[in-house]
Formats: sequence, structure tokens, C-alpha cells
Amino acid sequence: MKMIVAVIQEAVSSNDKATNLALTEKRIRDAAQSGAQLVLLQELHSTLYFCQVQSPHYFQMAESLDGSTCLALERLAKELNIVLVGSIFEKRAAGVYHNTAVVFDGNKGMVGYYRKMHIPDDPGFNEKYYFTPGDALKNGENPYKPIQTSVGKLGVLICWDQWYPEASRLAALQGADFLLFPTAIGWHPADTSDEQRRQQDAWTLIQRSHAVANHIPVLVANRTGFELSPGAHSDKPELGIQFWGQSFITGQQGDILAMASHNEEGSLLAEVDMSRSETLRQMWPYFRDRRIDTFSDLAKRYID
Amino acid sequence: MKMIVAVIQEAVSSNDKATNLALTEKRIRDAAQSGAQLVLLQELHSTLYFCQVQSPHYFQMAESLDGSTCLALERLAKELNIVLVGSIFEKRAAGVYHNTAVVFDGNKGMVGYYRKMHIPDDPGFNEKYYFTPGDALKNGENPYKPIQTSVGKLGVLICWDQWYPEASRLAALQGADFLLFPTAIGWHPADTSDEQRRQQDAWTLIQRSHAVANHIPVLVANRTGFELSPGAHSDKPELGIQFWGQSFITGQQGDILAMASHNEEGSLLAEVDMSRSETLRQMWPYFRDRRIDTFSDLAKRYID
Repeated sequence: MKMIVAVIQEAVSSNDKATNLALTEKRIRDAAQSGAQLVLLQELHSTLYFCQVQSPHYFQMAESLDGSTCLALERLAKELNIVLVGSIFEKRAAGVYHNTAVVFDGNKGMVGYYRKMHIPDDPGFNEKYYFTPGDALKNGENPYKPIQTSVGKLGVLICWDQWYPEASRLAALQGADFLLFPTAIGWHPADTSDEQRRQQDAWTLIQRSHAVANHIPVLVANRTGFELSPGAHSDKPELGIQFWGQSFITGQQGDILAMASHNEEGSLLAEVDMSRSETLRQMWPYFRDRRIDTFSDLAKRYID
Repeated sequence: MKMIVAVIQEAVSSNDKATNLALTEKRIRDAAQSGAQLVLLQELHSTLYFCQVQSPHYFQMAESLDGSTCLALERLAKELNIVLVGSIFEKRAAGVYHNTAVVFDGNKGMVGYYRKMHIPDDPGFNEKYYFTPGDALKNGENPYKPIQTSVGKLGVLICWDQWYPEASRLAALQGADFLLFPTAIGWHPADTSDEQRRQQDAWTLIQRSHAVANHIPVLVANRTGFELSPGAHSDKPELGIQFWGQSFITGQQGDILAMASHNEEGSLLAEVDMSRSETLRQMWPYFRDRRIDTFSDLAKRYID
């Protein structure tokens, strides 16, 4: 079974959600008109990447699972009859905020959500300040359980989760047909170009490797554009992040089906042949041979 | 701390161990003369890849951990004062055979061994017929425990193990400074060139991804040359394996430091900067954030 899927890569220039969502909506419509049945948006697409700094001010931008961003995406998914995966700064309760991906399935409305499990925290990415990690059990189940939609089961993960083969594996072991990564990653302008290239290559290949290890397609939507750190002067480009774009879609062997450039905005489409997953799992039967009798130590922090 | 490491890629044309080891010895000497302190050989380097067919005849080729191949490698490691990692068809007892990597450290002699944990079995690769998988506990410890040598702790894995991020992670969580993969993988001549390319790309990138996920260098020694399936007629090239060579060495971000061609024989060298591992683990603190409270299901066959 072949299917067209899309990821949308955007530069964001303000925290005006309505304006940003209107631009995103146009791109989603483009993708759907080109035949996309599944559309993935980038991480925290309706605002700037506010985590560059710590400021209690930004908690005002958080919204609930039935907030304005979700309502807009739900309406659009219904109208276009697509599966649409968005990303919000979620307010679950006063003092409990998450980085959450939300899944809408045509007329069915919201069919699931995923709260980011692995939260980064390093200079320019102060996410532990804003986001409580997702619960260890989600409604009593493994939190990486894929979300059932009309196009298949979506293994939805978010950005920093991408560095953990464990997360992708747990989605695959629960039947994920796809892995999806809404992402916001970029270069620190002070790094050398060699170091920037190594970082981006590493990011591309770790996500391609999840396709290889699990024989399912991978969709990655990354932010593009330069965002100055809030409060910094615009003549100090070292105080900001150059989001590196290069959103991509792979087949089930990690083969690149489509890849965006560093700086273009818009929707990136690819046709994936879903039947390849089972064929490849028969030809390369990794799942048959996992030495599960030796894997319990993976639940340790370090083995010392 | 910078160090020169080497992998040796060879075509094998007979089961004459003495002749094969003499050729290998010459290449090891070349690598050591070029300054290599750590040298990795390919999987089952002293014979043809006999697992193309099932024949009890081949059990005669198995040898113990103090057999002729190990003695030859031990002698050479002492003479050259290097760390040398070889690969044997091990006879542990009548009826108990393993695919085993053996580690020699200069004057210290054999300092450890690793028995392949994940055993493939598909057309042309009848390994489950020959090899008992490694024990779940090795001397009471996790079987992926790296082997201490004078150049660092070696996380030694073998071929099919390469497809399992779990195995690499377990070596890294036990302090591995390197990951080493003796390998024998090739193309079935009947596959299309596109499929061959995808297979080889997937193989390269999954091993590079273990460097990325764990921030340690990866060494891969693969066999090259065409080996006809035993008993097949030489006018039937579809009955054999074209080993695809392309042995390689990566840095700690999966960056390729050196890669051999499809068909060349010889030693491939690279200089690795071991200090990068700790620097990168501080800059990209994946190990800090692993959600170990959610990983116990990795020890399940499937979550259904």
C-alpha cells in the first residue's frame, strides 16, 4: 500500500499564534492538495522557540488539549480529511506543563497525544524549566504506545527523544507503522562549521537508524530560520539559534525519500510503500533474534 | 589522547588456516608499523565463510580458545605490543560451538573473549546451525561487558549484533571506550543494485548510529571478495556471496574517519581522539536523561 506523507518546515518570527497558524494552515492545505494523507508539523510550531531563556512570562502561552491551537488543527484535519500531527506547549494544570504532540484524524477529531519523555536542558534549550516530562505510564500503558489513526499506528516522539534508540524500539514493539519526530534543533552560531556539520550529520543518521532498526518509515519536521535569544541585541548573532531545517522522510531502510534544505519553508512530500515494512522484517528478521534475556539492564542508569 | 587504530579487510580463498593467517599476519604487521595500537580483524578471518551451507564436516574446523589461531594471534600481539582482536569458530565442548571474538593485549596475552549473542539464520547465512548463542550471563555478569585492555575498554560485538542498538548501549553503559564489529556481510548477487545499495547504506548507518547514541568510536572490519557456495558450480555466481567490504572507522559522532572500498584488501587506519567522548557526553548529555523508568519493556519480545 502506497501513501503520500508530508512534513512542514517553517521559520517563525513572532509569538503571534493566530498569524503563525494561518501560515501553517496554508502549507497544510498545499500538502493535502498534493495528496498527503498524513502531515507532520514541527515542534512548538505556533510560537518562537521560547526555551532559549527562562522566563515565567512564557507560561502564559501554554494551552490545554482543547485550546485554540488544537481546535484550529482539529478543524483543518476534518475539513481536509487528513491525519495531522501538531505540537503544543501544553498546560495540564497550574504548574504542570508539557511539550506535547497532538494527533487529529479527519472526522474523528483528536485521537491521541504524546507528552515528550526526554527533556533536554543545555545552553539555549532550557526545556527542563518549562516542561514536566511525560508520565512513565500513560493511562496505565507504556508511554511510547503508538496512536491509532486511519493511516496506521503513529509512533510519535519529540525532538530530544530522537537520540534514544530505546524510545523508537518501544514504539515499534507496540506496533508503530511510522515514527514521527517534531523537532526544533539548530546550530549555535559560535560553533565551527566542521562541528556544525558533524552535529547535523549525527542528528540525521540517528533518526535514519531508527528506521533501519525497526523497518518503519521515519518523518522528521524541523524548524528553520534564525531566532534571536529574547532580550539579546540583534547585533549579537551569537545569542541565538540558527535552526538547521533539513526536515526529511525515510523509507524502511533509512533511505532518504525526501529532504528539505537548510532554509526553505514549506511542505515536503514523499510516497512511502507501507508493504515494505513486513517484507523487510521477513528478509532481515531482527525482531526474531533480540536477546531479551539480556536486556533488563537497559533499565539501569549505568552499570557499575 | 589520540590513538591510531586499524581494521583489516580481506578476501579469503580457501580453508587453509595457516596460509590465511600468514597473509593476515603480514597486514597486521603493516598496521602496527604504521602506528596502530589497536587492530581489528574480520569475522571468521582464518577460513571461508562456511555458513553458506549446513554441513557437519565444518565442525572439524572449530578450535578452542587456546587453539592454533589464538596462539598465532597471541604471539603476534606480544611481538608487536598491540591490542589485537581476532575472530574464531570456537569449540567450547563437543556439541557446543560459538562464533567468538578473542582479544590479545601485548605481553598480557588473551585478556578476554566475546561469544556472539545474536545469531542470524537466513539463506546463505546458516549460523544457527553452527553457533550456540553466547550465554545470558558471562561469569555472572552482563555478557556485553567490555574487555579491559591497555588502550581502553573494548565493547566487542559481532556482525548480526550490529543491528541491535540494545547491545551497543549495554556495552556503553558498562564503560566501553570503543565498539568493535568483526563482520562478514555481503550481497546476494540476485538482488537489484538499488536493493544492494539500500542494504549496504543501512548497514553503514546503523553502526554509525551506535557511535552517535553512545559517543564512542566504532570500528568495523568486513570481509571482501566473492565466495561461491560450497558444492555450487563456479558458473553459477548466483550461488554465492559478494562480501561488500567497506570496512570503516568512525569518530564519536558517527563521523567517518576512514572507509575501505568494496574490494580492496589491506589495513585501514585512522587516528581517533579519545578525549572527544567525554566532551561530547557533556555537550550532549543523553545519558543524563534516559527514561529508565520506562525501559523495562525492552526485555519483552513484543508488547501485545
